[in-house]
Amino acid sequence: MVDLATLIGIFGGLFFIAVGITMTPGSDFRFFLNPASVMITLGGAVCSTLITFPLRDLRNVWRVIVLAFREERAKPAKLIVDFRRYADIARRDGILALESVTQDVRDPFLVRGLQLAVDGTDPEMIQTMMRTELEYIQERHNRGIRILKQFAIYAPAFGMIGTLIGLIVMLGKLHDPSRIGPAMSVAIVTTFYGAILSYLVATPLAEKLTVRNNEEALVKEMMIKGIMSLQSGDNPSIVEQKMKIFLSPKPQEGRRWE
Amino acid sequence: MVDLATLIGIFGGLFFIAVGITMTPGSDFRFFLNPASVMITLGGAVCSTLITFPLRDLRNVWRVIVLAFREERAKPAKLIVDFRRYADIARRDGILALESVTQDVRDPFLVRGLQLAVDGTDPEMIQTMMRTELEYIQERHNRGIRILKQFAIYAPAFGMIGTLIGLIVMLGKLHDPSRIGPAMSVAIVTTFYGAILSYLVATPLAEKLTVRNNEEALVKEMMIKGIMSLQSGDNPSIVEQKMKIFLSPKPQEGRRWE
Amino acid sequence: MVDLATLIGIFGGLFFIAVGITMTPGSDFRFFLNPASVMITLGGAVCSTLITFPLRDLRNVWRVIVLAFREERAKPAKLIVDFRRYADIARRDGILALESVTQDVRDPFLVRGLQLAVDGTDPEMIQTMMRTELEYIQERHNRGIRILKQFAIYAPAFGMIGTLIGLIVMLGKLHDPSRIGPAMSVAIVTTFYGAILSYLVATPLAEKLTVRNNEEALVKEMMIKGIMSLQSGDNPSIVEQKMKIFLSPKPQEGRRWE
Amino acid sequence: MVDLATLIGIFGGLFFIAVGITMTPGSDFRFFLNPASVMITLGGAVCSTLITFPLRDLRNVWRVIVLAFREERAKPAKLIVDFRRYADIARRDGILALESVTQDVRDPFLVRGLQLAVDGTDPEMIQTMMRTELEYIQERHNRGIRILKQFAIYAPAFGMIGTLIGLIVMLGKLHDPSRIGPAMSVAIVTTFYGAILSYLVATPLAEKLTVRNNEEALVKEMMIKGIMSLQSGDNPSIVEQKMKIFLSPKPQEGRRWE
Amino acid sequence: MVDLATLIGIFGGLFFIAVGITMTPGSDFRFFLNPASVMITLGGAVCSTLITFPLRDLRNVWRVIVLAFREERAKPAKLIVDFRRYADIARRDGILALESVTQDVRDPFLVRGLQLAVDGTDPEMIQTMMRTELEYIQERHNRGIRILKQFAIYAPAFGMIGTLIGLIVMLGKLHDPSRIGPAMSVAIVTTFYGAILSYLVATPLAEKLTVRNNEEALVKEMMIKGIMSLQSGDNPSIVEQKMKIFLSPKPQEGRRWE
Repeated sequence: MVDLATLIGIFGGLFFIAVGITMTPGSDFRFFLNPASVMITLGGAVCSTLITFPLRDLRNVWRVIVLAFREERAKPAKLIVDFRRYADIARRDGILALESVTQDVRDPFLVRGLQLAVDGTDPEMIQTMMRTELEYIQERHNRGIRILKQFAIYAPAFGMIGTLIGLIVMLGKLHDPSRIGPAMSVAIVTTFYGAILSYLVATPLAEKLTVRNNEEALVKEMMIKGIMSLQSGDNPSIVEQKMKIFLSPKPQEGRRWE
Repeated sequence: MVDLATLIGIFGGLFFIAVGITMTPGSDFRFFLNPASVMITLGGAVCSTLITFPLRDLRNVWRVIVLAFREERAKPAKLIVDFRRYADIARRDGILALESVTQDVRDPFLVRGLQLAVDGTDPEMIQTMMRTELEYIQERHNRGIRILKQFAIYAPAFGMIGTLIGLIVMLGKLHDPSRIGPAMSVAIVTTFYGAILSYLVATPLAEKLTVRNNEEALVKEMMIKGIMSLQSGDNPSIVEQKMKIFLSPKPQEGRRWE
Repeated sequence: MVDLATLIGIFGGLFFIAVGITMTPGSDFRFFLNPASVMITLGGAVCSTLITFPLRDLRNVWRVIVLAFREERAKPAKLIVDFRRYADIARRDGILALESVTQDVRDPFLVRGLQLAVDGTDPEMIQTMMRTELEYIQERHNRGIRILKQFAIYAPAFGMIGTLIGLIVMLGKLHDPSRIGPAMSVAIVTTFYGAILSYLVATPLAEKLTVRNNEEALVKEMMIKGIMSLQSGDNPSIVEQKMKIFLSPKPQEGRRWE
Repeated sequence: MVDLATLIGIFGGLFFIAVGITMTPGSDFRFFLNPASVMITLGGAVCSTLITFPLRDLRNVWRVIVLAFREERAKPAKLIVDFRRYADIARRDGILALESVTQDVRDPFLVRGLQLAVDGTDPEMIQTMMRTELEYIQERHNRGIRILKQFAIYAPAFGMIGTLIGLIVMLGKLHDPSRIGPAMSVAIVTTFYGAILSYLVATPLAEKLTVRNNEEALVKEMMIKGIMSLQSGDNPSIVEQKMKIFLSPKPQEGRRWE
Repeated sequence: MVDLATLIGIFGGLFFIAVGITMTPGSDFRFFLNPASVMITLGGAVCSTLITFPLRDLRNVWRVIVLAFREERAKPAKLIVDFRRYADIARRDGILALESVTQDVRDPFLVRGLQLAVDGTDPEMIQTMMRTELEYIQERHNRGIRILKQFAIYAPAFGMIGTLIGLIVMLGKLHDPSRIGPAMSVAIVTTFYGAILSYLVATPLAEKLTVRNNEEALVKEMMIKGIMSLQSGDNPSIVEQKMKIFLSPKPQEGRRWE
């Protein structure tokens, strides 16, 4: 259920950075912990994001981010197998028999689609309703992606602002030369935080969600196609054929590289 | 009425920066106040913006910026409820009875639309007039957005110019080494101002107004649809159904995450 | 006639920079004057621009730049008033009477259009000819804009090249430490010149001309519409109505903010 | 079979960098080898890429990268000669005789196409199937290209993060001035690694694959055209003429420069 | 024949840089000559370009670059005069008489077009063939432009890599402070080379070729139009009129600025 790649990526990235720090002669993890830097980078970037987007979109952003940590549910191949079974049931016991099937389906989008077919809703109407809902889901995810992308811009900007603060203070008090080094060290930590937040967290998550969003649209388009096919009374192999158009042709051949 | 997110964002961002400054050992707020830096960053960026845009667009920019600090007025859900009521009145007492309703409506765009319907203007004509006005409103807001975005480019550029000035003066007088630090500190304050103006103020406001502008267009499109529906004598539930196309389908189901 | 905003912007920007310099303790205007820096930044950027564009486009660039310093001539509101008058004359004394009117018109585009109408040229033909000429004018201005934008890229690049030259020379002769500061000061002046040329001059002018070009296209489209209307014998109020489509609806209402 | 340009480019680039290092007075290759830098740059960039893309796309990336090291197989000119021969065979011995030809063809895409023609599949169907497969191949390659481009963004970012780590540690321990230089040297190696990974490896490979992808699409379009032509029973010279449309006209004349 | 603007631009730019160097007090041209820097910047950027593009495109790049140093051949105005003459000849002596004219024409594209007209090729066919050839020429030039643009990205990147090498070596050997300056001076020369290659050579040439390519397309479109007109037996003034559509209207009026 958990998307291991995302977890391994983030913790692996932090691990490599930590090992890199440990391997640097004379290093000390305390150099890299600075509450003031956290406040400026994270606080500032969050505040700028808060200005940018309506509150209700920001409340949704967590639910979108969570998606990047979850393995995608719908496998196109399994979906086709399921639809063959639905087509079998519909042929044998009539389309009303699909009512029972919806109990086991976990994707609410698919449940709604099947229910509409069972209810005998007009096909054109089903298609319009499902496509509208698909667009709405995509739009909500896109808002989450835009928020992450904007955060990825603000985080290094506030990292730089924090470093400027450190430099200004340090240079303003250049009476005690022994403090120059440590002060600059602290100043640069802010840029370091900004870069990690942007390049290890926000940008990769935003890109992953973009890839996911495109895949989800494809799977949901397959569902719509399948439900249309079910309702028109197609036999199982026709249902399968119509849904396969969305898949790569002959995946087994794909192994032979062309 | 006030958009708290914008206020909290700007003041929160300034607060985090101020706390960050306070937490930096040996810091002093006076290091961060420098009239010369204000003149160069703000004055220079304003002047470049003055060259870029016609004066009449610049006079409008304040009115557009103010929108980013105001909670949006029109709530789509409430709008549909209102239109159901208008449809009820129109059905019971004739469309002329809507005249009285316009007294309570505060959005001048909607008032104008209802008035046109009451006056029995040709439907096609109403649609053309309202869409033209919508485009004009959008265009005016877009001009404000473009001004903010351009200012967000100029501010850090003049921040850098100010820092260059400081460096040139400091290096040109490198006879008294004890003054290097403070002079550079002052020089860097200009870059600091430019970064804050761009990343905490101009960019987030421009992005927020862009998001707002798209939402406003949607709401005003709903109004046009509703007025068309009212005028054609639709009953309340048809008016509602026609306007709901613009909304996300089944928002209550949206809670179940798909 | 002179566009005050452009002049105030450029001189205001230079003024703020000059004041900023004056307010920097220990500064000296001579630090900011360096013939070598002028040669590298301006000479280099001009030469790169010379390579980029055909000579005949470069000869035109001054005439395009001049436009940024001139108040736009055609006021849409006044244009409509004028056309009402032309329509009046055409109605009373026939379209040939417009011949005399062209004496007082200063926009050669409009003169040509009116002349074509007076000559009884085929309406379709007038429209094609005027639109072709409009496209040509736009294209010529766009070339000027592209030249300014390219110059705005080259100027800071050569500013950086000049600073690199200064650094290389200074570091190559690091025997006399007392000269480091002044030498670096000179080196950085080149970057300073490049930034001002790009951010206070070339970029704002290019953006202003882009805004202007769009406005001019609108006004000239209004003229074409008006001439078409005149020639088809429309009465003054129809001419006015047809031209007003290009204007914002009910500008007086615009004051009430929506 | 091996694409010499890619190999010469990468090893040549490394060679020039190595020579440049050798020619720098007082250099030592050990300065440029630092395990901590490798871990941060390579490890970090790989981890961020791991977050960004689904695992199955990442497993494919090697097969796509390999393509950049292989000379492209299909030469358009040779392809036309082959198709003339196929057309000859089909004319003499019937289209079924092409069955034997497919033994010698190495491109599985072409084999599949010829087989479909031999099997007497409906022409429209062949075209749809082959174009779908072509789109799928292109899409798979595009995913590899997107991964490389994203890696080219992450590599210098983690290079910078590694340099920040080195700077923070070094400045935090500024008690022993004799160690400043070597510590900074190590810090900068990370940026050096990031720049090489991005500008000598990932970016050029991604760009090459983009160019290749476009060429491959052209060749495969030619194959589809050729198979369509074969199946409709065209004579060899018509097959050739139809396929030549995809080639540059009169390549021999191309020598004369116009 | 030689495009003076390109030559003056490149040599002028180098001249201003040389003068700038001379005017810098204490400079020495030897500071700016460093074989190691040449190898890294030029060698590295060429190698990355070698990876990026197919060898056959790289072999063509010189022929495309040469175009930037040649005055464009076809003058639209002269072309129209020529076509009037051709139309005269065709009217008087029949279209076959144009055979002799092709002797004096130097543009192979035009020769081919006229020959096709003389041969009595089907007009539609001529148009298809000439437009295909035009697209091919444009595509070949575009490849050269893409190579230059990519080189303009790689050159400063390898300039930076060279500077990093210099810094790493210098800081790694910080035992002899007297050598810091000269070593850094050498390091920065690499960035200097990269900037000049990109901003004075590759970028301006790529942009110039883009402008040229668009102009050439226009002229060749005029030729196609002219040949079509010749073949359909139009009289000289009709040929002229049809070709003039591609020109700016009334260039003599253009002088009066609008």
